[in-house]
Amino acid sequence: MNDAIDAMQEGESPVFAKNVTVRFGDCDPAGIVFYPRYFEMFNNLVEDWCAQALGTSFRELHLERGLGLPTVHVETSFVAPSELGEVLRAELRVLKIGGASVTLQVRLAGPAGEDRVRAGLVLALMNLKERRAVPIPDPLRARIAAFHVNTTN
Amino acid sequence: MNDAIDAMQEGESPVFAKNVTVRFGDCDPAGIVFYPRYFEMFNNLVEDWCAQALGTSFRELHLERGLGLPTVHVETSFVAPSELGEVLRAELRVLKIGGASVTLQVRLAGPAGEDRVRAGLVLALMNLKERRAVPIPDPLRARIAAFHVNTTN
Amino acid sequence: MNDAIDAMQEGESPVFAKNVTVRFGDCDPAGIVFYPRYFEMFNNLVEDWCAQALGTSFRELHLERGLGLPTVHVETSFVAPSELGEVLRAELRVLKIGGASVTLQVRLAGPAGEDRVRAGLVLALMNLKERRAVPIPDPLRARIAAFHVNTTN
Amino acid sequence: MNDAIDAMQEGESPVFAKNVTVRFGDCDPAGIVFYPRYFEMFNNLVEDWCAQALGTSFRELHLERGLGLPTVHVETSFVAPSELGEVLRAELRVLKIGGASVTLQVRLAGPAGEDRVRAGLVLALMNLKERRAVPIPDPLRARIAAFHVNTTN
Repeated sequence: MNDAIDAMQEGESPVFAKNVTVRFGDCDPAGIVFYPRYFEMFNNLVEDWCAQALGTSFRELHLERGLGLPTVHVETSFVAPSELGEVLRAELRVLKIGGASVTLQVRLAGPAGEDRVRAGLVLALMNLKERRAVPIPDPLRARIAAFHVNTTN
Repeated sequence: MNDAIDAMQEGESPVFAKNVTVRFGDCDPAGIVFYPRYFEMFNNLVEDWCAQALGTSFRELHLERGLGLPTVHVETSFVAPSELGEVLRAELRVLKIGGASVTLQVRLAGPAGEDRVRAGLVLALMNLKERRAVPIPDPLRARIAAFHVNTTN
Repeated sequence: MNDAIDAMQEGESPVFAKNVTVRFGDCDPAGIVFYPRYFEMFNNLVEDWCAQALGTSFRELHLERGLGLPTVHVETSFVAPSELGEVLRAELRVLKIGGASVTLQVRLAGPAGEDRVRAGLVLALMNLKERRAVPIPDPLRARIAAFHVNTTN
Repeated sequence: MNDAIDAMQEGESPVFAKNVTVRFGDCDPAGIVFYPRYFEMFNNLVEDWCAQALGTSFRELHLERGLGLPTVHVETSFVAPSELGEVLRAELRVLKIGGASVTLQVRLAGPAGEDRVRAGLVLALMNLKERRAVPIPDPLRARIAAFHVNTTN
């Protein structure tokens, strides 16, 4: 149904991943990431996913289409601290696709692959002016589905 | 058992509350609060609670005692957007006190008292150098308990 | 010419001032304010000045009038570091009022009144949609003039 | 005198450059970069320059050597606004090397190479514990000199 999925190895979950460097400005007086900064990392990851994998940038969504993709719910476990200068691996997977929302699993891993942060995020597609949820268009839905963890089953 | 509680009206839950103004720098291109900024508001609220209600500032904790109070888990629902210039009411209540952790309920309300953000946060008392959990000392525990939602029952 | 000025003591420079607490999230791994955060403090000060002293909030400017007050030039000396938990005094004075711009002097002082940060900022009144400078309206100009350092001469 | 310089074309100024994407979280309600965020971009650029060109990361400086490289003075002109999703070119050149300080020229350019932000920054090498300036060690000085705008003269 989707070539990107067909091309993946059996049993491998489709994932969108990027490296994220822990910046000086991300760290608090304890020398570790100040936790609100992790949510900026999440948002950057979602931005990159939209622009690079879904074919629609935040710029296009906001400025041209009057749409937004706000985070409406988030659950996050800060498993272990991350230090200045570390390069983390940020991974995004799709857990669920609703009518106007998508549930993501985001994971930040340390250099040895160990958990640093695990999160579940619910994003909703919104008409910004009218402030109401908008059904995810089918072409976008198909692209999102390529990252669904259960797609390969 | 606790004067602060005794003085409260029957059925009223003990709460630590502050006003928070939505700043220009808190807002995104949609003109509403960029959600990572809400977590900075939460952290500021916890800081004020420590300094003003618990008798121990983050400064004292970090710089003098080598302790930290990192957020280890958070669940947040962004119920409705908040706009530039609005004054929100930030409320903190204690849901649970563990050996080395405390579970908080945080709520941000709009000018009419309506829900904007609802969150549950788990904070852990940590020795920063050794990066291990530290039992909450009894005097601090007693002060935290004054904000426990079930104290009055 | 201006009641606010007339009411001031002779030789006293008109100033808009606020207290600013150094937050955990403002500080870097060295335990002092991460310098980009000072500019957020500046912006908050300008916001408060507009809303509380000039009679026109950023919200009104942006959302109702389609105007903005971007900072177009800044010169800043970070004289001495500021630490977590300190309460700084933020002062704003007007150095110059141009056709569409205003030059401000901003100073952050430590608890003993000593210099921490000294800055000069040039703000311009802009039509946001057309992205062009807009002459400062006379009523606003009069209110800004009340904070001019030379007004009392 | 310096191989990196010798290899450069005649008349070309040595520069450290990176691309910077304007993120959703960098932008204000006017849809353009909130100016304090530009200073975070500057700081990230300096961090990358240290780690990738000078051979000493902020992590090593802070955590292992007890040194910091705070910005003590900055002058910045915000020539034109930058929008969500744009990829800016960030350039760093060295204008002056003092005993314990270095003066940098930083420029952010838009997609067509046009000026967006121009800045001069003075950084000082500091002993963080003693809070005093520290002479720049000769090996580090030599590496910094490779980015001096007048080296090729």
